[in-house]
Amino acid sequence: MKRTIFDADHEAFRDTVRTFCEKEIAPHHDEWEKVGIVPREIWEKAGALGLLGFMMPEEYGGGGVDDFRYNAILTEEITRIGASGIGFVIQTDLVSGYLLSYASDEQKARWLPKFCTGETITAIAMTEPGTGSDLQGIKTSAVLDGDEYVINGSKTFITNGINADLVLVVCQTDPSAGAMGFSLIAVERGAEGFERGRNLDKIGLKAQDTAELFFDNVRVPKENLIGEPGQGFIYLMEKLPQERLSISVVAAAACRRVIDMTVDYVKERKAFGKPIGSFQNSRFTLATLETEARIAQVFVDESITQLNAKQLTVDDAAMGKWWTTELQKKTVDQCLQLHGGYGYMSEYPISKAYLDTRIQTIYGGTTEIMKEIIGRGMGL
Amino acid sequence: MKRTIFDADHEAFRDTVRTFCEKEIAPHHDEWEKVGIVPREIWEKAGALGLLGFMMPEEYGGGGVDDFRYNAILTEEITRIGASGIGFVIQTDLVSGYLLSYASDEQKARWLPKFCTGETITAIAMTEPGTGSDLQGIKTSAVLDGDEYVINGSKTFITNGINADLVLVVCQTDPSAGAMGFSLIAVERGAEGFERGRNLDKIGLKAQDTAELFFDNVRVPKENLIGEPGQGFIYLMEKLPQERLSISVVAAAACRRVIDMTVDYVKERKAFGKPIGSFQNSRFTLATLETEARIAQVFVDESITQLNAKQLTVDDAAMGKWWTTELQKKTVDQCLQLHGGYGYMSEYPISKAYLDTRIQTIYGGTTEIMKEIIGRGMGL
Amino acid sequence: MKRTIFDADHEAFRDTVRTFCEKEIAPHHDEWEKVGIVPREIWEKAGALGLLGFMMPEEYGGGGVDDFRYNAILTEEITRIGASGIGFVIQTDLVSGYLLSYASDEQKARWLPKFCTGETITAIAMTEPGTGSDLQGIKTSAVLDGDEYVINGSKTFITNGINADLVLVVCQTDPSAGAMGFSLIAVERGAEGFERGRNLDKIGLKAQDTAELFFDNVRVPKENLIGEPGQGFIYLMEKLPQERLSISVVAAAACRRVIDMTVDYVKERKAFGKPIGSFQNSRFTLATLETEARIAQVFVDESITQLNAKQLTVDDAAMGKWWTTELQKKTVDQCLQLHGGYGYMSEYPISKAYLDTRIQTIYGGTTEIMKEIIGRGMGL
Amino acid sequence: MKRTIFDADHEAFRDTVRTFCEKEIAPHHDEWEKVGIVPREIWEKAGALGLLGFMMPEEYGGGGVDDFRYNAILTEEITRIGASGIGFVIQTDLVSGYLLSYASDEQKARWLPKFCTGETITAIAMTEPGTGSDLQGIKTSAVLDGDEYVINGSKTFITNGINADLVLVVCQTDPSAGAMGFSLIAVERGAEGFERGRNLDKIGLKAQDTAELFFDNVRVPKENLIGEPGQGFIYLMEKLPQERLSISVVAAAACRRVIDMTVDYVKERKAFGKPIGSFQNSRFTLATLETEARIAQVFVDESITQLNAKQLTVDDAAMGKWWTTELQKKTVDQCLQLHGGYGYMSEYPISKAYLDTRIQTIYGGTTEIMKEIIGRGMGL
Ligand SMILES: Cc1cc2nc3c(=O)[nH]c(=O)nc-3n(C[C@H](O)[C@H](O)[C@H](O)COP(=O)(O)OP(=O)(O)OC[C@H]3O[C@@H](n4cnc5c(N)ncnc54)[C@H](O)[C@@H]3O)c2cc1C
Ligand SMILES: Cc1cc2nc3c(=O)[nH]c(=O)nc-3n(C[C@H](O)[C@H](O)[C@H](O)COP(=O)(O)OP(=O)(O)OC[C@H]3O[C@@H](n4cnc5c(N)ncnc54)[C@H](O)[C@@H]3O)c2cc1C
Ligand SMILES: Cc1cc2nc3c(=O)[nH]c(=O)nc-3n(C[C@H](O)[C@H](O)[C@H](O)COP(=O)(O)OP(=O)(O)OC[C@H]3O[C@@H](n4cnc5c(N)ncnc54)[C@H](O)[C@@H]3O)c2cc1C
Ligand SMILES: Cc1cc2nc3c(=O)[nH]c(=O)nc-3n(C[C@H](O)[C@H](O)[C@H](O)COP(=O)(O)OP(=O)(O)OC[C@H]3O[C@@H](n4cnc5c(N)ncnc54)[C@H](O)[C@@H]3O)c2cc1C
Repeated sequence: MKRTIFDADHEAFRDTVRTFCEKEIAPHHDEWEKVGIVPREIWEKAGALGLLGFMMPEEYGGGGVDDFRYNAILTEEITRIGASGIGFVIQTDLVSGYLLSYASDEQKARWLPKFCTGETITAIAMTEPGTGSDLQGIKTSAVLDGDEYVINGSKTFITNGINADLVLVVCQTDPSAGAMGFSLIAVERGAEGFERGRNLDKIGLKAQDTAELFFDNVRVPKENLIGEPGQGFIYLMEKLPQERLSISVVAAAACRRVIDMTVDYVKERKAFGKPIGSFQNSRFTLATLETEARIAQVFVDESITQLNAKQLTVDDAAMGKWWTTELQKKTVDQCLQLHGGYGYMSEYPISKAYLDTRIQTIYGGTTEIMKEIIGRGMGL
Repeated sequence: MKRTIFDADHEAFRDTVRTFCEKEIAPHHDEWEKVGIVPREIWEKAGALGLLGFMMPEEYGGGGVDDFRYNAILTEEITRIGASGIGFVIQTDLVSGYLLSYASDEQKARWLPKFCTGETITAIAMTEPGTGSDLQGIKTSAVLDGDEYVINGSKTFITNGINADLVLVVCQTDPSAGAMGFSLIAVERGAEGFERGRNLDKIGLKAQDTAELFFDNVRVPKENLIGEPGQGFIYLMEKLPQERLSISVVAAAACRRVIDMTVDYVKERKAFGKPIGSFQNSRFTLATLETEARIAQVFVDESITQLNAKQLTVDDAAMGKWWTTELQKKTVDQCLQLHGGYGYMSEYPISKAYLDTRIQTIYGGTTEIMKEIIGRGMGL
Repeated sequence: MKRTIFDADHEAFRDTVRTFCEKEIAPHHDEWEKVGIVPREIWEKAGALGLLGFMMPEEYGGGGVDDFRYNAILTEEITRIGASGIGFVIQTDLVSGYLLSYASDEQKARWLPKFCTGETITAIAMTEPGTGSDLQGIKTSAVLDGDEYVINGSKTFITNGINADLVLVVCQTDPSAGAMGFSLIAVERGAEGFERGRNLDKIGLKAQDTAELFFDNVRVPKENLIGEPGQGFIYLMEKLPQERLSISVVAAAACRRVIDMTVDYVKERKAFGKPIGSFQNSRFTLATLETEARIAQVFVDESITQLNAKQLTVDDAAMGKWWTTELQKKTVDQCLQLHGGYGYMSEYPISKAYLDTRIQTIYGGTTEIMKEIIGRGMGL
Repeated sequence: MKRTIFDADHEAFRDTVRTFCEKEIAPHHDEWEKVGIVPREIWEKAGALGLLGFMMPEEYGGGGVDDFRYNAILTEEITRIGASGIGFVIQTDLVSGYLLSYASDEQKARWLPKFCTGETITAIAMTEPGTGSDLQGIKTSAVLDGDEYVINGSKTFITNGINADLVLVVCQTDPSAGAMGFSLIAVERGAEGFERGRNLDKIGLKAQDTAELFFDNVRVPKENLIGEPGQGFIYLMEKLPQERLSISVVAAAACRRVIDMTVDYVKERKAFGKPIGSFQNSRFTLATLETEARIAQVFVDESITQLNAKQLTVDDAAMGKWWTTELQKKTVDQCLQLHGGYGYMSEYPISKAYLDTRIQTIYGGTTEIMKEIIGRGMGL
């Protein structure tokens, strides 16, 4: 199914991104996987090209473009080269949303310029050791003390956790207010009492720094509160659809990539005197995966269109999130199988894809939580 | 996911169709299931409302509208009331295509007026007892003898087989020409030697007349040849995508219907003191089905858009066909399960839906044949 | 996997049963499907051969054999010919258990002789219109009035409901006692106020009489109480494993049957110049089904062995029940697909198998209820 | 389902093995994963306890026990602690079979004593870079030159490839003889021209040395031929069922392990104020996996019984192989999901299980090749 959502400007942007990915990322990514983190410079190079701030107002150094198709293109191209360590998406698709919608002008002036240049790397910290799916279980507290919030608690599994200069932390600010007792507070690198744990050792995403964050009486000016106090969950509910769509964009692009890679492989590799792609089982497997990859892409594209029109619902985003990521998991698994023993070897890109994929159905809200949301939307 | 492909004209047409379905079909369909056929009058009533010929040129009594969204609406509304016996789709979505594209002006003048009024009911006969998936195995022969074709052979599983007045028969006209040896020839009710077998007893589609057709030295004027001799397969390849999309439209609409029906049921029915819809397993099952139904609908709608733009490829149509019908099968099966013992009782509409559904992955090209086509398109 | 649980005596019994099935049932079953019930005579013929009472003590005319392998053979042979209307299993595998374990000597003397000859046909009535999965929701009440129980309420979906002479009815005898407030009471044909509803119209099992039963102040002597009052649920818990194993025996045998039937079909039927069984997809599908059918059979056979050793647990029986019946459903569905259009035609046995199969995951405890039981057993 | 195949002697052996695993392997395995290989000493310790040669004749230092239940116990216990680096199974379940059945007395005297003590570590080399599934594509040649075979070619993916002292190499000895042109030849450590490639970097099995082997004019005495020339494939066909059963034993034991681990986890971990194991979706998921794990175990146990009775067929072994390993894959995947984000962290054993599992459906004959074999056995 031919994609129809992009026009010439988007394609030009895609070219820029693709060149950047191939020149600046692809040759180094293996190395970054070994050290477990990407260098800050790659952020600055991306910033210089306008890849990090295109959605930000021009007055702060951004591109002033409110069109999620650009976000999608950036994500797709990074996924296309398997650069799973690059955490731009947190900045462009998640943190950007909170800052754009809820940050004050003063905050924007303070943070956005370096956000756009890539000098400031961001993260968003919701999950805690004791609670992930159930955000209402968050225990990290922020207590207003004079002009400052005093933050105590810890977060875990935070993407860009080591590199991040500015972290949006979901804190409990009013334990008595239930769902209305949470707020979004920005904590900056260097704040006293703000420590990072180790860079967590994961199945995949080897170049992505995922870390624990500790807050021990961290004091931040009350001007670091994003938006209104007590509105944290409202903001999350409003922005999570965009985060989930981001993950769907990755999923669809990853399906595309591994299918293409596998089609190439099965045309080359021979067994019993024939390309293994010529066995009917291989053909049917790949025809099935191709079908579902296209169906996923059409849904993702329509979701992008609806997001742009401010019409993407929480339910539809949840649907796309679980379905495309489960598909990605199935796709990568079956493509690996078609590689035979080689699929299990680290030097084959399909094996890395396998490792990177497994988290997709978990973060950003697990498949199960997505189904909870959808079921609720159906009145069940 | 809100559907976005329809405008006000379409909605007006939908209203007309819905009223027609509810007034003229719904109250009688059970009865028609018992007798195994729908009365010819329902065709004429539909014709009178313009439901059968909207895609035909106005000069022949048609509506002059070349927009598959109308076809989709007609199919969706019929499916919405479970009226599986109504074979309009053969006329509006299949036969219409061949006549519009390949019939001569003389043929159009001869056949279209009554096609539009519903006085002429049509069918298309490809399948034979000995061959279904493999159309190149067709043995029904048509030999030119003077000004007439002499047809011998038999066809089976022909929808509208009993009611049909005009049957497009795929015949072998040149056994030595391989794939280029097949032609489309129209056979009219009453032609000598043209007999119908019994109305076949099927698992479902109880009101739909599916029959064998026998041709014993049937002579038809050579003016009954549709298009060029030897082009039969080219025509089929050109028109089958539209047929397959029709089936996908049914599938998506059927999913919608049974999910809605089941959501209602599980909200009412109680066990262990709670609505059965409140058990997490029920919620997750329905959330899964709802997700996939919406994804299917988005793909179908995009396919309709692309068909209208003459861009729907053979592969994309094949993808939609197998995927949506397999989904329909799964959906109906799981919805039946949620009905418990009542799901197995004929009086519950879910049980009829179960019976009607099973053919969807078979006719119009089986799931396996669709995957063959797709695999071929991928170069495998 | 060669089966190893049978010895020569079992094989001899199998021969008897097979001959009986082929001579007395197979030629008439189609006719019985039309009338919706099997004649009482078939029960008496089976009784005369010892097929109904082999598990009963010899003093009451039974065979005195406590070995579930005989039950399995009877069920397997009936399934082998697709005789889904024959409700012997209710008598031999379900009711037999309650009578053997809990009936008094007086009751045995009263009921068993004709039970063995087939003059008395039995049923067990748990399900009610308002409650199926949740047996604790049973509302049919039995109130002791002098020497009689007065029964009020209704039951539904009762197998052998029309033919049955002796019905074991689960009644609420003490609404205040919770799970300990239910008892098993036998109601005999002819009791005043005991009416049967219509023979329910179902998707399949067309020759099996499934009916509603109504109890309007039905008075039965208190000697019709089976076992102790208030012990009804204890008895059910004790006997349901055997019922569930019965259903698994059917499932395994049905898989065997439809795979064999389909292997034959795909070896004969040709497409593209080759038997359709030779396409790799067909081969892999059938290899998958054959694998799972054998695995199911091994599990069923081991379950039979453990039942005979009084070691089959509630959990293991629940596991076998859901797994083998879900497998049967999948197997029949995929075998139908391999029949192409013919699979949808009533005259092909695969189509009848499809219709008969759908209830298997529902009655005897739905798949969902089985998983509840198993999960509970795991401490979840 | 209680397992019934073991008696007291087996249980005693299990105790020995378990103690050995817990004392000698478990504390070091993480370390071995880091270095990518297990130390030779662990083989010698196992040998000293009789764990490597129990199936060998006593005259050569073995235990003289021909009972595959012991092999199963060894494998189960190693799997129970997740010690995927231990390659004993190659020695005890694969190489043992070839030596026992086809080695001459002279060969036995030469090799078995150190095989039993663990001083000699063995491997079997079939796969080549160019061919895995299709063993007839093997190109490594052995040409008889005087009293020696001269071997040329290369093998890949050889388990124990670095540690092995004695490698059974499948060679083409007669290119003109088709399937009868392959022989089994033993190559010993130190043979000139016999080189090992690097220890391959894999997704999992991190402590298992898997390597390429190169043969460049390697000369071995013709006394190193195992059995008869040209019989290599016959031998493989005869012994592969046992190898496949070994893999099924691992699969069943791995399912057991990860389910137990996950049940513990979900009872502890809380979300929304409840153990996550208490959500119905978690319960149903685990009930499903538990069911299938037990069914798999029953099939594996029956296969062991039939292997002991020399009745396990090629087909049944193939069925068990693909089914249990596919189940293992599904089980580990779903158990990981139930761990949420922690499932993706290397420190959680479920994550290592995930990595180790992926090869199971590939080596020892892929799922696809198993289905080919089964389909052939069905005459398709
Ligand atoms: C690599 C990585 C990067 C991440 N990046 C970030 C980040 O940048 N910022 C951030 O805030 N977080 C991040 N996360 C955290 C992630 O969002 C959480 O791991 C995820 O939301 C799941 O939470 P959990 O791990 O606590 O699982 P749990 O909540 O403990 O869930 C465990 C299991 O229980 C299931 N479950 C929970 N509730 C229910 C229910 N009601 N019904 C049925 N099943 C249920 C879950 O679906 C899951 O299968 C990241 C995680 C990883 C691994
Ligand atoms: C209710 C009903 C209505 C119908 N209406 C019409 C109609 O109006 N006009 C008309 O012409 N036809 C009609 N058909 C026929 C229908 O299109 C055919 O039944 C269908 O195409 C399959 O053909 P077959 O039945 O001959 O199956 P076969 O071709 O015999 O196929 C049997 C099985 O083999 C599989 N198979 C075949 N080839 C391959 C391959 N290469 N690789 C793998 N698997 C393969 C198939 O997928 C199928 O599972 C109708 C059928 C039914 C049941
Ligand atoms: C042909 C036929 C023969 C039968 N024969 C007999 C007979 O001889 N005697 C007899 O007593 N009964 C008989 N039955 C009844 C049968 O046992 C019940 O239909 C069955 O137990 C399901 O009950 P229900 O129909 O009330 O479904 P419900 O209990 O209403 O269940 C509806 C749906 O909800 C699901 N559900 C229920 N509770 C839960 C839960 N806690 N969590 C998740 N899902 C849940 C069910 O699994 C099902 O999918 C027969 C039924 C049929 C159709
Ligand atoms: C960790 C590890 C350990 C191993 N240990 C050993 C060992 O000790 N000794 C040894 O000899 N080998 C060993 N192997 C090799 C292993 O047995 C092979 O990798 C396996 O048999 C598959 O062969 P292949 O990798 O060449 O895949 P290929 O044969 O190239 O297969 C690729 C894909 O094509 C599919 N395919 C092939 N033919 C068909 C067909 N006819 N129809 C449909 N699909 C088909 C396959 O199923 C697979 O999905 C090991 C491999 C690994 C990864």
